[in-house]
Amino acid sequence: MRLVSYIDRRRSAARSSFGAVVGTDIVELAWPGVTTLRQGLLAEGMQGLSRRLAAAGQAPSVALADVELLAPVADPGKILCIGLNYHLHAQEVGMAVPSHPSVFARFPSSLVGAGQPVVRPVESEKFDYEAELAVVIGRAGRRIPVAAALDYVAGYSCLAENSVRDWQRHSNQATPGKNFPASGAFGPWLVSPDEAGPLEDMTVIGRLNGAQVQSDTVAHMIFSVPELIAYVSTFTELEPGDVISTGTPAGVGLSRKPPLFLKSGDVFEVEISGVGVLRNSVIDEC
Amino acid sequence: MRLVSYIDRRRSAARSSFGAVVGTDIVELAWPGVTTLRQGLLAEGMQGLSRRLAAAGQAPSVALADVELLAPVADPGKILCIGLNYHLHAQEVGMAVPSHPSVFARFPSSLVGAGQPVVRPVESEKFDYEAELAVVIGRAGRRIPVAAALDYVAGYSCLAENSVRDWQRHSNQATPGKNFPASGAFGPWLVSPDEAGPLEDMTVIGRLNGAQVQSDTVAHMIFSVPELIAYVSTFTELEPGDVISTGTPAGVGLSRKPPLFLKSGDVFEVEISGVGVLRNSVIDEC
Repeated sequence: MRLVSYIDRRRSAARSSFGAVVGTDIVELAWPGVTTLRQGLLAEGMQGLSRRLAAAGQAPSVALADVELLAPVADPGKILCIGLNYHLHAQEVGMAVPSHPSVFARFPSSLVGAGQPVVRPVESEKFDYEAELAVVIGRAGRRIPVAAALDYVAGYSCLAENSVRDWQRHSNQATPGKNFPASGAFGPWLVSPDEAGPLEDMTVIGRLNGAQVQSDTVAHMIFSVPELIAYVSTFTELEPGDVISTGTPAGVGLSRKPPLFLKSGDVFEVEISGVGVLRNSVIDEC
Repeated sequence: MRLVSYIDRRRSAARSSFGAVVGTDIVELAWPGVTTLRQGLLAEGMQGLSRRLAAAGQAPSVALADVELLAPVADPGKILCIGLNYHLHAQEVGMAVPSHPSVFARFPSSLVGAGQPVVRPVESEKFDYEAELAVVIGRAGRRIPVAAALDYVAGYSCLAENSVRDWQRHSNQATPGKNFPASGAFGPWLVSPDEAGPLEDMTVIGRLNGAQVQSDTVAHMIFSVPELIAYVSTFTELEPGDVISTGTPAGVGLSRKPPLFLKSGDVFEVEISGVGVLRNSVIDEC
């Protein structure tokens, strides 16, 4: 099952909803009082949404091409990002392999959906790309054991966890450089684990204007997805719709000689095998 | 005006609301569709709430003693905490005076209201207190100029920005040590700027089991409240109900010889002149 959140602008009053992608169409899955995917996960979980899709008879509600995609979870309670999680990326930025995951938060306002432009703020001369695998939580849990962690996953998505490097190093806290409005992207959809296939087979690719700039396999993570879920859920309860962005592979612009930063007109893609392609253009803030 | 959020458990169906403290009573200010202070600030701002209080004729809805206080803003969109913001605190933890504010996020689940116990998690042997002044935003703004910043403040409150030191230094990101459920506290109320008086006259005091352990004046902050609002609003839009916790004075338990950490049965108070006293007991997680 591939789930999207979207705005249907053909309606006289544009409204947002969520649904399942079937071929080139969307089957709407919202119901009264439950208008976002997060609310749907809270109310019925992925199994309930799957039953609703089956009951809907796959009658399309709208063509995928006719909507504006939002982040698949547009209103997550928490977006937890992992700072250094691939060995080669830790090497390229000159950091030791961490003993524990490095975790910071992004606010939802920092992420746009697939196809929407990401915005380089006027404060930035060093706006950098970061292709990442995003894990969306499907069930609430605290101190989730590693062995059970994947049972708590609703699905996977792509996340452009872009950095305003100019502001990321103002202090040792990443927050300022990671939260400029619309500086990152999340999408295009949430893919259920059965459809995405085994995590260890996934490759995370970053592509700038068609040229591959990042590529590594999820098997090369320093902390595996189950380990990240176990760690994070120890210090905060995970809830349906929460997002864990699992860190970026080597190849970021900051580490290149010369550095390679995003500029207006660029197109950055995050492609993850089994999950999909997230594509966003870059615009300068007016 | 002093505003509280609370649960009234005398009703057959306990429900949460918000209102203004008048003497020893609360005048409820919620209205249909607006049941939280954040929603009230979004809908009408402090001026609107003040008009509603005047129109309510100060007829008490419930005695303050009969309710369970919640965090004054129980559902903030963002809680931004400042890491090192008093000169003597930077000295005691051996850090240089920072060139920019150090900013990390707490999630609302990490904070309880006044009078509720804060919880030392089973993972912690080093659960530390941090008395702080909290600033609640009343108007949306981006790139707010320093000179205009106080116009964006709805009011002030006390915040026990407690730290699980064991987890705070797992990496250079503070997030894990700052987000254990119910590890901090926020309250008892939001005091409007006219009632709180000038910021530079405020003293922030931390008191453990009746003994003063922290005390400094807001005038000794490294980055002033207007400077913090200007900085934070550059990288993220501030919205009504957002919270900025402005850093803790010297005297934290970690820096004492021997260290002084919170244990079950302790009572920690944050007292800020012009604002009030936030008092919470400490319990061990079962």
